[in-house]
Amino acid sequence: MSRPTPLSGFPEWLPRERIVEQQVLDRLRRTFELWGFAPLETRSVEPLDQLLRKGEIDKEVYVLRRLQADPDDAGDSGLALHYDLTVPFARYVLERSGHLQFPVKRYQIQRCWRGERPQEGRYREFTQADIDVVGAGELPFHYEAELPLVVFDALSALPLPPVRMMVNNRKLSQGFFRSLGLEDLAGVLRIVDKLDKIGPDAVADALRAETGAGDSQAKAVLEFASIRSEDASFADRVRGLAGSDDPLLTEGIDELVRVVEAAREHAPGMLVADLRIARGLDYYTGTVYETELLGHADLGSVCSGGRYDNLASSGSDVYPGVGLSIGVTRLLSRVFSRSLVTASRGVPTCVVVALPDESRRAECDRVAAALRRRGIPVEVAPTAAKYGKQIRYADRRGIPFVWFPQDDGGHEVRDIRSGEQVPADPASWAPPPSDLMPVLEASAE
Amino acid sequence: MSRPTPLSGFPEWLPRERIVEQQVLDRLRRTFELWGFAPLETRSVEPLDQLLRKGEIDKEVYVLRRLQADPDDAGDSGLALHYDLTVPFARYVLERSGHLQFPVKRYQIQRCWRGERPQEGRYREFTQADIDVVGAGELPFHYEAELPLVVFDALSALPLPPVRMMVNNRKLSQGFFRSLGLEDLAGVLRIVDKLDKIGPDAVADALRAETGAGDSQAKAVLEFASIRSEDASFADRVRGLAGSDDPLLTEGIDELVRVVEAAREHAPGMLVADLRIARGLDYYTGTVYETELLGHADLGSVCSGGRYDNLASSGSDVYPGVGLSIGVTRLLSRVFSRSLVTASRGVPTCVVVALPDESRRAECDRVAAALRRRGIPVEVAPTAAKYGKQIRYADRRGIPFVWFPQDDGGHEVRDIRSGEQVPADPASWAPPPSDLMPVLEASAE
Repeated sequence: MSRPTPLSGFPEWLPRERIVEQQVLDRLRRTFELWGFAPLETRSVEPLDQLLRKGEIDKEVYVLRRLQADPDDAGDSGLALHYDLTVPFARYVLERSGHLQFPVKRYQIQRCWRGERPQEGRYREFTQADIDVVGAGELPFHYEAELPLVVFDALSALPLPPVRMMVNNRKLSQGFFRSLGLEDLAGVLRIVDKLDKIGPDAVADALRAETGAGDSQAKAVLEFASIRSEDASFADRVRGLAGSDDPLLTEGIDELVRVVEAAREHAPGMLVADLRIARGLDYYTGTVYETELLGHADLGSVCSGGRYDNLASSGSDVYPGVGLSIGVTRLLSRVFSRSLVTASRGVPTCVVVALPDESRRAECDRVAAALRRRGIPVEVAPTAAKYGKQIRYADRRGIPFVWFPQDDGGHEVRDIRSGEQVPADPASWAPPPSDLMPVLEASAE
Repeated sequence: MSRPTPLSGFPEWLPRERIVEQQVLDRLRRTFELWGFAPLETRSVEPLDQLLRKGEIDKEVYVLRRLQADPDDAGDSGLALHYDLTVPFARYVLERSGHLQFPVKRYQIQRCWRGERPQEGRYREFTQADIDVVGAGELPFHYEAELPLVVFDALSALPLPPVRMMVNNRKLSQGFFRSLGLEDLAGVLRIVDKLDKIGPDAVADALRAETGAGDSQAKAVLEFASIRSEDASFADRVRGLAGSDDPLLTEGIDELVRVVEAAREHAPGMLVADLRIARGLDYYTGTVYETELLGHADLGSVCSGGRYDNLASSGSDVYPGVGLSIGVTRLLSRVFSRSLVTASRGVPTCVVVALPDESRRAECDRVAAALRRRGIPVEVAPTAAKYGKQIRYADRRGIPFVWFPQDDGGHEVRDIRSGEQVPADPASWAPPPSDLMPVLEASAE
């Protein structure tokens, strides 16, 4: 077998990187659970026709085929890997609604697959961490203000660059465009969404050409899209630009004010109303979110989502929801490529028990068992090599302590960083708490 | 959209089941880390030709195809979903050997896919939890004795029926067959592996017909395969049956004795030498393991593996290893179908803060934030419904406490199981530790 090479778009981490990923996921999970979100997973596959219903990404879907499919077994034909966690969760809610308590608050941390052209921040296999709240029939607005706070709690507990979440509201945008007399709301939204890519002049041209906007309407839309504010002051500016009173606009403004004010109280400076934000997906109906890792805008949004009223429905039963999705792999790809965070070691092991002689392995195993019983991760040295080599075994992995059984039945333990060696009892010795497990450290950029 | 139905072979758990799964996985992970195994994950896909090199399961592999593949992009043609975690890890070790410290001890908990006909214990998508130790060039034998102890620690900490691991050794079997003068070692092994399925008479017939065994040889093989023992007493019985001294037999006996004795000291009664065990896979070269959930033998092995010397090699570099793989989905399918274990509640939430009036939501959010800061999972009630309805919200989810902000600025908390309600301070109140998070409970079968 020749030495294999990596597959573009299918990232794999080294052990020390995986420890960073795992601790990031642990922190996300911990925070989600503190807010009452229950863990949930869905299968990795969905019927292809269900996936294609939801959007324009058909060419990016991976379809499955059994290598030697049995012709009379159609059970897994037409299956494809999911490309996000929102569509599978909406399907799960419909399928299991009789077994669920609404509103359902769930988090879901899983891999997704898209056959996109790989580049930094864009992978063919990637992990998303989603939170959603879904109601039966109705869902109170306040969850749209709550979800950003959960994400802020989760991300600010990590040694990452700060994030800023940009928030808008579909009702506000559509109400505003309607107040100007523009009727093709979806069309205007789609054009405004291109502002970053094509610039204001091209947006104005497109508005005039494709939505029948006049000069003053196009100007008002551009001015509207330039509004950013960390407090409720955007509300008056929007009202000043609006062509007329519009109940949808009023509702959208009120909602966005509540989102901004909740964030200002809970996590000042992390959320900004940004009326340029549109989000591509058609199914959003209220608040929409995008999130920038500060100093890394080129990476794209690391946490996005929104309110959706019509994603899951069956006959007259509708299940409106709101969700946010953290792009874990995108975030980590930047963390690793720029060495933003490192783990203090690449293994969980805190102590290596040195082996004086292979005949004393059982004795060393007992020392290890005694330490493990008190929650200390321990390995016994792989071979009875010279002590220098056994210490190097620990040192190369970043393991802080080496334990030496003495010939008289006593024990000593050495902190190999300082060289300090002290007598120790397997039944009571413990490392400093900060050495017990690997910890994450922010690196100077 | 009509209400969707489940896909056979792709299990999904309800929220309360997922909590059981998550706590089982947490316990496995915790134990693996206490033994110094580092977390690792590999991508879900491998080149198809690599997967097919390893065995006879080609028809069970799922191949990927992009729905609208770009003809000039061959980057992901010929990819298939992995069917286990051993082959991908062997590939990872080869690919990253320059970045790894050997021996590598890793655990890996991920989904796998096989297009098999679904039945209980056999799924098309399933989670495996693997531990492996891989050396560069060589790997000391003692890891073959250590791995079962890790699994015993992990599984015996769970409220599951006890397990029994059946262990054999390829060197012992092959040395024994050779000592009888049987030369087609792989052939004999393959036939003995069918003992449970076809019975001793058919095995004897097949040995005579396919391996040229005579009556006494067939009889010795059958007697050999009937040997089971929890201690080293099997060794003398094997020597008594063997046709002649064979160095491979001696080595195999010595190794199996060491495995049995290590388990007897660490976890009495959990491991048995069982010379019938063969394991289908060709790549095993030393100890082989299978594990039965006691009282559920029909489920098949819930933890299997073995020593492999030749799975990963590149030119003259070889990476021998030993691994065990826990079939988490198989185990849980039985746990759920027989209600062997339940979670005390289906959500992480410990406290619901009741909402007297929607205008007081910010005040309730502050109570929730104060409790969360001290690690207590809290939700604020979704609406300011009548208190009876808010209490039912908690009760239906198994949430033990409801918090009531009082009109005078004070607070009270009620244990809704006992009805006891007491004054409480958000800055200091804490639930009993056993109520903080959901716990697993073994059910009477």
